[in-house]
Amino acid sequence: MELRNICVVVTARPSYSRVKTLLSAIKEHENLELQLVVAGSALLDRYGSIVNFIEKDGFEITERVFMVLEGENPTSMAKTTGLGVMELANVFYKLKPDAVVTIADRFETIATSIAASYQNIPLIHIQGGEVTGNIDEKVRHANTKLADLHFVSTEDALQRVINMGEDPEKVFNTGCPSIDIAAMINQEALNFNPIEKYGGVGEAIDWKKGYLVVMQHPVTTEYESAREDVLSTLEAIHELGIPTFWFWPNVDAGSDGTSNGIRTFRELSKPKNIHFFKNMESDDFLKLLTHSKCLIGNSSAGIRECSFLGVPVVNIGTRQHRRQRGSNVVDVPYHKEKIKEAIQERISKGRLPSEAIYGDGLSGKRIAKIIANTPLTFCKTIRY
Amino acid sequence: MELRNICVVVTARPSYSRVKTLLSAIKEHENLELQLVVAGSALLDRYGSIVNFIEKDGFEITERVFMVLEGENPTSMAKTTGLGVMELANVFYKLKPDAVVTIADRFETIATSIAASYQNIPLIHIQGGEVTGNIDEKVRHANTKLADLHFVSTEDALQRVINMGEDPEKVFNTGCPSIDIAAMINQEALNFNPIEKYGGVGEAIDWKKGYLVVMQHPVTTEYESAREDVLSTLEAIHELGIPTFWFWPNVDAGSDGTSNGIRTFRELSKPKNIHFFKNMESDDFLKLLTHSKCLIGNSSAGIRECSFLGVPVVNIGTRQHRRQRGSNVVDVPYHKEKIKEAIQERISKGRLPSEAIYGDGLSGKRIAKIIANTPLTFCKTIRY
Amino acid sequence: MELRNICVVVTARPSYSRVKTLLSAIKEHENLELQLVVAGSALLDRYGSIVNFIEKDGFEITERVFMVLEGENPTSMAKTTGLGVMELANVFYKLKPDAVVTIADRFETIATSIAASYQNIPLIHIQGGEVTGNIDEKVRHANTKLADLHFVSTEDALQRVINMGEDPEKVFNTGCPSIDIAAMINQEALNFNPIEKYGGVGEAIDWKKGYLVVMQHPVTTEYESAREDVLSTLEAIHELGIPTFWFWPNVDAGSDGTSNGIRTFRELSKPKNIHFFKNMESDDFLKLLTHSKCLIGNSSAGIRECSFLGVPVVNIGTRQHRRQRGSNVVDVPYHKEKIKEAIQERISKGRLPSEAIYGDGLSGKRIAKIIANTPLTFCKTIRY
Amino acid sequence: MELRNICVVVTARPSYSRVKTLLSAIKEHENLELQLVVAGSALLDRYGSIVNFIEKDGFEITERVFMVLEGENPTSMAKTTGLGVMELANVFYKLKPDAVVTIADRFETIATSIAASYQNIPLIHIQGGEVTGNIDEKVRHANTKLADLHFVSTEDALQRVINMGEDPEKVFNTGCPSIDIAAMINQEALNFNPIEKYGGVGEAIDWKKGYLVVMQHPVTTEYESAREDVLSTLEAIHELGIPTFWFWPNVDAGSDGTSNGIRTFRELSKPKNIHFFKNMESDDFLKLLTHSKCLIGNSSAGIRECSFLGVPVVNIGTRQHRRQRGSNVVDVPYHKEKIKEAIQERISKGRLPSEAIYGDGLSGKRIAKIIANTPLTFCKTIRY
Repeated sequence: MELRNICVVVTARPSYSRVKTLLSAIKEHENLELQLVVAGSALLDRYGSIVNFIEKDGFEITERVFMVLEGENPTSMAKTTGLGVMELANVFYKLKPDAVVTIADRFETIATSIAASYQNIPLIHIQGGEVTGNIDEKVRHANTKLADLHFVSTEDALQRVINMGEDPEKVFNTGCPSIDIAAMINQEALNFNPIEKYGGVGEAIDWKKGYLVVMQHPVTTEYESAREDVLSTLEAIHELGIPTFWFWPNVDAGSDGTSNGIRTFRELSKPKNIHFFKNMESDDFLKLLTHSKCLIGNSSAGIRECSFLGVPVVNIGTRQHRRQRGSNVVDVPYHKEKIKEAIQERISKGRLPSEAIYGDGLSGKRIAKIIANTPLTFCKTIRY
Repeated sequence: MELRNICVVVTARPSYSRVKTLLSAIKEHENLELQLVVAGSALLDRYGSIVNFIEKDGFEITERVFMVLEGENPTSMAKTTGLGVMELANVFYKLKPDAVVTIADRFETIATSIAASYQNIPLIHIQGGEVTGNIDEKVRHANTKLADLHFVSTEDALQRVINMGEDPEKVFNTGCPSIDIAAMINQEALNFNPIEKYGGVGEAIDWKKGYLVVMQHPVTTEYESAREDVLSTLEAIHELGIPTFWFWPNVDAGSDGTSNGIRTFRELSKPKNIHFFKNMESDDFLKLLTHSKCLIGNSSAGIRECSFLGVPVVNIGTRQHRRQRGSNVVDVPYHKEKIKEAIQERISKGRLPSEAIYGDGLSGKRIAKIIANTPLTFCKTIRY
Repeated sequence: MELRNICVVVTARPSYSRVKTLLSAIKEHENLELQLVVAGSALLDRYGSIVNFIEKDGFEITERVFMVLEGENPTSMAKTTGLGVMELANVFYKLKPDAVVTIADRFETIATSIAASYQNIPLIHIQGGEVTGNIDEKVRHANTKLADLHFVSTEDALQRVINMGEDPEKVFNTGCPSIDIAAMINQEALNFNPIEKYGGVGEAIDWKKGYLVVMQHPVTTEYESAREDVLSTLEAIHELGIPTFWFWPNVDAGSDGTSNGIRTFRELSKPKNIHFFKNMESDDFLKLLTHSKCLIGNSSAGIRECSFLGVPVVNIGTRQHRRQRGSNVVDVPYHKEKIKEAIQERISKGRLPSEAIYGDGLSGKRIAKIIANTPLTFCKTIRY
Repeated sequence: MELRNICVVVTARPSYSRVKTLLSAIKEHENLELQLVVAGSALLDRYGSIVNFIEKDGFEITERVFMVLEGENPTSMAKTTGLGVMELANVFYKLKPDAVVTIADRFETIATSIAASYQNIPLIHIQGGEVTGNIDEKVRHANTKLADLHFVSTEDALQRVINMGEDPEKVFNTGCPSIDIAAMINQEALNFNPIEKYGGVGEAIDWKKGYLVVMQHPVTTEYESAREDVLSTLEAIHELGIPTFWFWPNVDAGSDGTSNGIRTFRELSKPKNIHFFKNMESDDFLKLLTHSKCLIGNSSAGIRECSFLGVPVVNIGTRQHRRQRGSNVVDVPYHKEKIKEAIQERISKGRLPSEAIYGDGLSGKRIAKIIANTPLTFCKTIRY
């Protein structure tokens, strides 16, 4: 059998966690060769560069692509994407991969899709077919229409991708590789001190008797209100007074809105119960989640990993709109009191049973095996 | 009622013909203001700049965007698209349109779609839902998934766009504005001398007793064979000896392949029955088609306008694969003898009855009216 | 006399202050029309957007150019410059100015120079002929060799530009327009409360009995040590304990180094005598300087405005290397103790007499008048 | 001694000929490693790709950079340069060379200079210090001011670079490597049939009894008149009726003007005495020159190689303005009759004695030796 060069483009911190076991599985497969491209905010200190984590995990970075344009409005998102197309076109021209993998639905992932498909390189899309409520929704389905091979995470997603006109023989429900990592977590006890290991800023909270975790990203089509949105959560958490680890948002057009909101709140309110992190190794983050009382915010980890881990989640706003949920999730609007109530209600229930909606822990290897064995093509027509 | 600024981005000669009556209808509508952006190969002499035609038609060009990268491989198509995103992002940031119109499925049209949708500007897509067989197929459906409002040309296309998960209230079968122009053609007799009016190169053929028209574009995913493909047609036409007007292909990665094929053939074979044009005003082109014995090649005009005009068509290769056809079209592969036979068979039938598959001649005004009256939104979720 | 459109490109906060009186003089001149392009870090909140100041000063912004690429290394400086050339080429193509003005020697100013000169637009360079010690040095002299008309600030600079082979009839020592602003300052007393007016972060220091001002930019060719460099100054100021206003550095490849240094120091040392600002209107900044005990750092304001204002300066490191100095300046290396000593020595001297080395306060009008009356050409050859 | 990686960026066909012996010398030097970047029009078939020649000469291409933007005006030259900066910044970031070599004065060479110097990589400039009359003049001297080490071709040039303020210890008059190639030519007889070997288009002229060579490039600051300029020469050559080999111009903003002029003239006048080539291996070109009666046009080969070879030259227009000349050159304006007269006068003199103004045939090795042994620095200040 021929050796296949598979080029995976990682453009952000959460995307790396999402495909880490797939990267390992590609690297270890005898008929696959991994070409790892790290691009965009994944390279930038300001958003928590993941280069060190990647190298510590034993992966070699084949190419680095700096492409993030600074700006305070959605224009810079568009221009970053355009620049990404130009840069990634060069990279694929040079690496000549047998297939390119694009991940999920961040705005810049369409750059990977265009640069590959326009050069007649088979395009593999991971995590298509889901539903959300903003620009990610458009990007995800456009990625699906540019892609030749699809690995989705749920039965709903499988059906949706086929309904969009894709060939059923090219769509596989493999579960999400992010669940593989969750499945490897030792659930006994938190075996590190988050503040000692990661520093961060803010009070040295007493987390040992129980803590909350917050991760709230700006919702890009409403980016001007990003500042207000995050303030509801900040105030709710502040008023509850429960020790909390808060994670900085990743890069988006509204990033400065959210970041400014957090910075200003810290200056003015000096919250005693919140400690802020920029970044954490994905394993440690999952351990932190596993032992938390509740995850608050709009991170997809609440929908995906936490359903497997049985961690209670208060999901705020529209970012995870229509994503398939486990019974661990409660949804609330950007409203301080409702956020507070929901957190208290969730905490009162305690740890919940594991649900395997988004995967069973074996997705990475399953995907790699299919990539090695399925025909790789770059021509398709809609099925109806 | 509020005034709406509607920005139409024209990136190539054929796209202009396709939306000319829509541009007029927008300009004349009391609640709409036209912002006309001319970009890409539409500005370049090498591919027949359409700037003069646009100005002669009475439209003012709001912005010009130079974005075509030179190159001999698909990499330059990808990079042109990336540059287009960056440049159009600037243009939309400045013009602040209430909606942006992207046309059909050329590779660079996705640049318009990204630059608009990422900036939360409602995106209108014209001519979605059709089916072809190469990169255009991917681009067209990706445009659909980025767009908020859809104007399609046939019942088949309407059903396909809805099947892809779009809201039926946002999809309209208005017919194609290119048919409007065909419907305005005076069909009595050819009222100009093509060679006198347009020059061109090659023999001064005697076209008055009947002539063929050829328009053959490179098929991008097979661009290396573009040269061979065009030679089959050149030889077929040469051997038939019927007076022929041949149109230069538009820009694509394989353009140089096709162009080289034509140039070399001219040098070596000095065909006495072929006259070459780079460009023609769309009205004159339709008149030329109307009075021709047969259109040969892979132009969409053969599928669309010619079904309305009743002009026989020999359609070569895969470029128009699965597009809805009238009874005027015969399909053949890249094969000299089969092309010759098909031309002779078509000519023997003479002019055919008009069919209204792609429109009834009123599409431009119909689209403008809907744009003026329908809610313009930029958020959507898939319908299933 | 014909009307001349003069396009000035401002790419950073300090550049704006430098040409503000020139902008006014162009706007008010009956034969000149101002086209103001604001670009690069001048548009970004992270570095203190100056858009509000510009509009408050009564100027209309003709075009905004987002071009800053994020990154942690000099690569992003180069790419920002390349993107700037592309974007500014569009802007000049559209505005069709009779001349373009590029300012001084920041890395991205060469983008203005290339975009103008390659399009055969007469290029005017302000503040050529000076001497410094890093990439600015190369950029400044390259700007001179691309420019057609030169307005320099000192006699030394005049001689240098002529020595480089420029036509003496095209080089004018007009003084620097930044001194015009200094000359307009009412020197009686500080008529605003900096902390009330500008907020900022850090302690509410008691500045009324006297204060220091610090402005220290990263030196780009040594960007990895930017963090260490700024720590010497931070510790010196901390140990002296004198109330201090500290200004955030502008964007450069080392920006994150310096910024990180400041952020970390604040977290760890919680300095009680330092208040931090991101930005200040240039008039207010000059007032603040005028009444300060001493300016510390490597800002060119120490060399230029402060010589006119008679404010003592401790200039640290190589950034102002070989710039003509008044007697108000003392130079020290990045060394905590030496910085402390120099500050104490300077303070002991008190306010110094004004020196007119960099201008007499009438430069803006003088430059505008020459621009209106001199032939504008774009062809030149070296004079020897 | 440490091994030094020397990155040479070749952006056009003539630049390759100019440095070919230097490339060999670097490759063969025990302490140097060659990194060869081929970029811009050097990669494009339309202007005669040199990739095959490079590979045939035994060099490995390290990176290929597609960066040429299509267009009909100088804007595309500027944008090509901007894109070049972005792309070359990536290339140097990845290759991490110990020094970068930029060649002469084509508009896009400043992209190399910026991408290297902004990343603190020592920049070597070849062929600075000369004088011409258009944008090349500005570019060449700007390259000098960005460069750290200079290899010039004549005594005049040496003096000029030093006069511009460069350190005399960093400037070397090594002669031009293009003369090395001229010196290796066997001058006995033309040992190949140009038409058989290179094809080309036009009449199969009888060159064996003597022939002319024409090479005329557009002069970019006058690009609109490029079409008219080339017509004077075409008509002069046509009327003289002497067998002539005519070389297609390289890419510049005016390229289409010149190319159009040639194409139209061929169509209309069908000149029987002219044969056209796109490209020729540099060795063969020099042989062709050596045995020609006269070189006509504005190629620098007329000034440089032909003075060494003793070939008569009719130099037209301003492109070689103020370049040091041998006694073999006669200058004329764009004027048909004057061109005709000058050609006849030159032919009447026959072959001339060799002059070593631009080099003695050993430049490539001389430059490589200095690069291997001199300190490579990236900081400098003007010397006065």
